[in-house]
Amino acid sequence: MFDAHTAGVYVIAVTPFTDTGAIDSYSVDSMVDFYAGCGATGLTLLGMMGEAPKLTHDESIAVVRQVAKRTKLPVVVGVSAPGFAPMAALSRASMDAGAAGVMIAPVPTLKTDDQIVTYYRSVVEAIGPDIPFAIQDYPLSTGVLFTPGVIKRIIEENPSCIMLKHEDWPGLEKITAIRRMISNGGLRQISILCGNGGLFLPEEIGRGGDGAMTGYAFPEMLVSVTELIQQGKRKEAHDLFDAHLPYLRYEQQAGIGLAVRKYVLKKRGAIASDTQRKPMAKLSPEAIVEIEWLLGRMVERTGLKL
Amino acid sequence: MFDAHTAGVYVIAVTPFTDTGAIDSYSVDSMVDFYAGCGATGLTLLGMMGEAPKLTHDESIAVVRQVAKRTKLPVVVGVSAPGFAPMAALSRASMDAGAAGVMIAPVPTLKTDDQIVTYYRSVVEAIGPDIPFAIQDYPLSTGVLFTPGVIKRIIEENPSCIMLKHEDWPGLEKITAIRRMISNGGLRQISILCGNGGLFLPEEIGRGGDGAMTGYAFPEMLVSVTELIQQGKRKEAHDLFDAHLPYLRYEQQAGIGLAVRKYVLKKRGAIASDTQRKPMAKLSPEAIVEIEWLLGRMVERTGLKL
Amino acid sequence: MFDAHTAGVYVIAVTPFTDTGAIDSYSVDSMVDFYAGCGATGLTLLGMMGEAPKLTHDESIAVVRQVAKRTKLPVVVGVSAPGFAPMAALSRASMDAGAAGVMIAPVPTLKTDDQIVTYYRSVVEAIGPDIPFAIQDYPLSTGVLFTPGVIKRIIEENPSCIMLKHEDWPGLEKITAIRRMISNGGLRQISILCGNGGLFLPEEIGRGGDGAMTGYAFPEMLVSVTELIQQGKRKEAHDLFDAHLPYLRYEQQAGIGLAVRKYVLKKRGAIASDTQRKPMAKLSPEAIVEIEWLLGRMVERTGLKL
Amino acid sequence: MFDAHTAGVYVIAVTPFTDTGAIDSYSVDSMVDFYAGCGATGLTLLGMMGEAPKLTHDESIAVVRQVAKRTKLPVVVGVSAPGFAPMAALSRASMDAGAAGVMIAPVPTLKTDDQIVTYYRSVVEAIGPDIPFAIQDYPLSTGVLFTPGVIKRIIEENPSCIMLKHEDWPGLEKITAIRRMISNGGLRQISILCGNGGLFLPEEIGRGGDGAMTGYAFPEMLVSVTELIQQGKRKEAHDLFDAHLPYLRYEQQAGIGLAVRKYVLKKRGAIASDTQRKPMAKLSPEAIVEIEWLLGRMVERTGLKL
Repeated sequence: MFDAHTAGVYVIAVTPFTDTGAIDSYSVDSMVDFYAGCGATGLTLLGMMGEAPKLTHDESIAVVRQVAKRTKLPVVVGVSAPGFAPMAALSRASMDAGAAGVMIAPVPTLKTDDQIVTYYRSVVEAIGPDIPFAIQDYPLSTGVLFTPGVIKRIIEENPSCIMLKHEDWPGLEKITAIRRMISNGGLRQISILCGNGGLFLPEEIGRGGDGAMTGYAFPEMLVSVTELIQQGKRKEAHDLFDAHLPYLRYEQQAGIGLAVRKYVLKKRGAIASDTQRKPMAKLSPEAIVEIEWLLGRMVERTGLKL
Repeated sequence: MFDAHTAGVYVIAVTPFTDTGAIDSYSVDSMVDFYAGCGATGLTLLGMMGEAPKLTHDESIAVVRQVAKRTKLPVVVGVSAPGFAPMAALSRASMDAGAAGVMIAPVPTLKTDDQIVTYYRSVVEAIGPDIPFAIQDYPLSTGVLFTPGVIKRIIEENPSCIMLKHEDWPGLEKITAIRRMISNGGLRQISILCGNGGLFLPEEIGRGGDGAMTGYAFPEMLVSVTELIQQGKRKEAHDLFDAHLPYLRYEQQAGIGLAVRKYVLKKRGAIASDTQRKPMAKLSPEAIVEIEWLLGRMVERTGLKL
Repeated sequence: MFDAHTAGVYVIAVTPFTDTGAIDSYSVDSMVDFYAGCGATGLTLLGMMGEAPKLTHDESIAVVRQVAKRTKLPVVVGVSAPGFAPMAALSRASMDAGAAGVMIAPVPTLKTDDQIVTYYRSVVEAIGPDIPFAIQDYPLSTGVLFTPGVIKRIIEENPSCIMLKHEDWPGLEKITAIRRMISNGGLRQISILCGNGGLFLPEEIGRGGDGAMTGYAFPEMLVSVTELIQQGKRKEAHDLFDAHLPYLRYEQQAGIGLAVRKYVLKKRGAIASDTQRKPMAKLSPEAIVEIEWLLGRMVERTGLKL
Repeated sequence: MFDAHTAGVYVIAVTPFTDTGAIDSYSVDSMVDFYAGCGATGLTLLGMMGEAPKLTHDESIAVVRQVAKRTKLPVVVGVSAPGFAPMAALSRASMDAGAAGVMIAPVPTLKTDDQIVTYYRSVVEAIGPDIPFAIQDYPLSTGVLFTPGVIKRIIEENPSCIMLKHEDWPGLEKITAIRRMISNGGLRQISILCGNGGLFLPEEIGRGGDGAMTGYAFPEMLVSVTELIQQGKRKEAHDLFDAHLPYLRYEQQAGIGLAVRKYVLKKRGAIASDTQRKPMAKLSPEAIVEIEWLLGRMVERTGLKL
């Protein structure tokens, strides 16, 4: 279920392409199986790291349909768009194709508190009140800053808003502020899933995050760290997290991060090719040496199988 | 013809909606007839002022098809997109629907000279070498700045680049620089059509612009000023331009400019409703009083019929 | 007096340099006399169009001192700064040098409503509660957007806030909103002076602006238009405004506008040299021809002496 | 010496304040001693993380003078400014106060390659050809992107340019490209010191960086990792780096990073108070618990004394 009680790890899926740049349907299935095998509780498609803007409308829907057919996990679709008509069209087509809900980032032109609140009101008018949606709070990319007060207003106005995809940076205090509102009865329950490539996952869960919604080539770590922190096993959580961190940091780089991730997902057998569509950053021979070194150390520390 | 010798006025068309926000097919036809009657030599669809991002893919193509069917004027389609696959899909569908060419702005993330040149190389790979295209040079909106040298590199690399849609501000020196390159034999011929709502039209044509590509509720003025300047009738050109300028300035405002333009186009009978899709700015009663005042003065000075 | 009842025209002064780029003290005096002779009710120094960031701290204070000594008109000083300590130092030094108050724009990093309100609270802590100040609301330059509600909060919290320097674009509705708050008793009186190079002056005064605070090489027009509109002589106001508009539009261009303004101020005898400090845009021969043409037509229509 | 062969670690110093926000001269000395004791080969003052914009001009110079007097290490001063006159004034005053050179970031308005090259030409005209300077390449903060080709042009035109402060992200390929130019004889020798809080230090040194110029509360790690990589002791370097990384990541957060750093520097006895001037982010009780936890684990792994 994708609702206000959602917890665990929603993996932001890559979009697999063949060497010639077509969508690789075979790898779509293998990737879904891989993520499910890592313990994901849901999948998020057409996120920024899913190369969503590089797909045509028809390709986007085809991917959603195939993924939703392959897995019983809830599938959330990024439907952010500069206009409401294409957003509504993509939302409806996604739900028809089997999605459980959608995720929506604000357009970059929004500035004032009222503009942001009005925007989400229009979103719900456009997509209808029945599609559960997550707010994508990602200032580094959108330039739009949500205060806890603005998030509260959006949640109160729109019953179909059931999640905060948290990706402010640094955003730990925001998680604390919202969790406090909820526990004080000042705000109804919503789910908070955290992004940022997992770079602050132990702290985010410690502050009250319900899990992660992010891409990372080793989702099983996100799953385990979330569980360990929630079970109070703080030391074990950090031990595991720290073993991943040197590589995770490398994958989390702006620009070439997706190239790194696809390289490792291919190495792990999740996808057949690490091709990206243009524009893209390519890995240099030096970068590949660095990645292999970091992976080697990680395997040694964790015993993880690639 | 939409080619390197194109001159005159390409009107950037609005998209007419009914009061309930559907595309108003009846007004699409009347608007095309209106623009043609004003002396336009071409039409540009799906520009930023055409509310392009607010249309679904299917609506976009339907509008292109209807317009191309209604008129013999060349139709250019704005196909700028964050990814190449949707850009290519929209370009091909537009050409199939009867368009004469496309216009492409850079994505806002481009910064260095090389990035811009590489981008247009990838554009042509994506849409193919056979679709004539205009570079849309609009830094105020995209944040991307083209030097004359970068424009030259793009033109030389890509034979299908046949026009500069010039909308830098202030950009008069850029027109001069490019015209000088062409007359010196340092660059092949391309067409330069100018934007900015016509706010600098007499100077732009004087510097060597071949005409205008912009929206304005009185395209006949753009047509006449272009012709008068090209005929050396500078005084007559400025007399006419100056009579429009107080209102033109008002229509050229960021934010509410499109509301003003649609209000006047409705008043002139070009479209049946001035409805915009959200997000939009509405005219206040005070704004309408101001517009009517400015129009009244303009009619008095020009004898123009609304 | 520079207070909540200030009206008329505060000219944003240029900074005169000699041909070698030193501050031209002789021209500082002649410029002040020129502005006063045009009917200015005050002067604003160290605005963005005064090349403020190109002056050293000592030069800035010397200019303020000289101007304040030369004229009995109130002098307002732009003291915007990335940090509060330099802002406070410049404010105190300016007041000591004879200024009547200061003007402060927000730092570009501010986004949310609360951040903006908090910023001005800190401003007043830094400069002290006794220095009257104007909010500089100039989103095109700062990227910071003030809603009427935010402006109200700042005014209510800070008794020393006595003016809104209005330069939003399009901002006519904001003037109306704030004037309405004041006339409804929902907000205490403040002065509203308008910027944007005067491009919307008749409408701004019609909406309730108290005058202009902007640069323009013919301040006497700003003075007359403001008075005519306030006297209900709307037609006369627009007739005068319209005669200036073709040239005003040219001076108001981003980038080279200041070069145009200094060229004309030199021509009018207000300053001895039109030198700017780097970085700057220079007038090409083509630009000078265009300016002379526009001035010639303006002189013909208005009978104005250059 | 601060020249084209500079290597090692230049610590970007904080500016110590007393609890009431005055500059804490006592702590300036203790901080300098602390950094020198950590093995720094130089100090960088008035960087962005040194709260430079929050100091008055006089305070800035006083800090430079005191630091230069206290230590024999070369002192580099950040003199970036929106105008050349204040930049020149600060540069000369800094050199007079004992600085070894300056560091200069581009103004955020620069876009094209030529604009960036022209800017540094004007910089050298302004500060004179005798002051050695570092280019500060920090796109995340300035929005200005330097290609290797642009860096080459700046270095070739300006003999006093002796260092690239590298802080692009991801910038590893840029280090490789520039090192390759130098080893190919295509570019004269310059020093490359790397920033980003040390987050990619092992890779940066591996790619050819000569050291680090960054802030971090444990500069001795930066020193050791640089040396170990340069000695080919890659495993030892990464072992040490990895032990710091969980905490380093936390200190490297945008916004509250400086609060974290000052908290730890105070704890280590380097400064007496962790006060920042406004605007600033404060540490919550939750954040302090997180920091202490991370420090505890780091001490355990490294045996480091706080």
